Amino acid sequence: MFGRKEKEQEKFIATVAVSNRHVHLKEEVFKQLFDEPLSMKRPLNQVGEFASMQTVTLKGPKGEIPNVRVIGPFRKYNQVEVSRSDAIILGIDPPVRQSGDLEESETITLIGSKGEVTLENACIQAERHIHMNARKASELNLKHEDLVKIKVENDKGGMMEAFVKVSDNGYFEIHLDKDDANAFMLKTGDEVEVER
Amino acid sequence: MFGRKEKEQEKFIATVAVSNRHVHLKEEVFKQLFDEPLSMKRPLNQVGEFASMQTVTLKGPKGEIPNVRVIGPFRKYNQVEVSRSDAIILGIDPPVRQSGDLEESETITLIGSKGEVTLENACIQAERHIHMNARKASELNLKHEDLVKIKVENDKGGMMEAFVKVSDNGYFEIHLDKDDANAFMLKTGDEVEVER
Repeated sequence: MFGRKEKEQEKFIATVAVSNRHVHLKEEVFKQLFDEPLSMKRPLNQVGEFASMQTVTLKGPKGEIPNVRVIGPFRKYNQVEVSRSDAIILGIDPPVRQSGDLEESETITLIGSKGEVTLENACIQAERHIHMNARKASELNLKHEDLVKIKVENDKGGMMEAFVKVSDNGYFEIHLDKDDANAFMLKTGDEVEVER
Repeated sequence: MFGRKEKEQEKFIATVAVSNRHVHLKEEVFKQLFDEPLSMKRPLNQVGEFASMQTVTLKGPKGEIPNVRVIGPFRKYNQVEVSRSDAIILGIDPPVRQSGDLEESETITLIGSKGEVTLENACIQAERHIHMNARKASELNLKHEDLVKIKVENDKGGMMEAFVKVSDNGYFEIHLDKDDANAFMLKTGDEVEVER
């Protein structure tokens, strides 16, 4: 059952990308927030996605966080991704979820240059995940939603569990939030060992 | 070699205490910062230590952090303990160290109600550690500076390496910083499994 190929691929190296808090929007909500078109600031590694020129302020019952980047293109759902430390500032308790799994997630208010919108079932903490396309997944003998272990060997070493996310446009990289990155002193571009 | 006793103690449960940024001071430096006596706000679990009524602002080349608690009693060295996210705000790069190991650590400025002091070799990120006294260490078959693994089983699960810190006044608890706590969604009082 555990052949040579599988054994060889029990460990692999992947690159870290640290995700700051950000927002995905439906076009209709974007238009309530801004009087300008969604415009690209820079492309992201995930194929077709981009950081836009537009930012919002997040507002919760306890506090606000300004300058939160809108990610393009528009999506079929509104989704605000924050870290635990962000959630504490805002005074909310978002569940840890995969992208798009928004049922009974948190309510949050967005303030744009034109207007303000309160979104229900819209705010999550993103599950740690490792993006890849089907070819890479096959090469690594992994499938969508497999759990892997990200190993960190430094002065604040340890291991983080993360989920495999297979998609057509999946660029091979590990997505961690700022809290994860700071706890383990990692930054975008760092290479780490991943165990199946 | 691995008898019954050792096997039984390969895992144990310990309680988490989350340490926010804080400052230990020599009496002479405290007197440069404050025109009032060091006074107790509340005792800490570590026997003899207390959170004082006095707070300072930390100042680095890039930013400031206000309301940072002075911990009593006075020590024989000045030591400022910050997290990685604090270090990024301040614009400094403190090494990860045990308490008291300050050689070639960071420079930082403290602002009190009376005055301002810049301290060289004074700022570190605290190593993750688990406090205990000699009796507890013996019971768990651990010794000072042993490396243990703190296991977290939740939606952001994983493992953090931590060092055993044996001292006379050691109250049995795990000290993590805010970044660690937020990355793993832990709070003071949470119980976790520790592996030798």
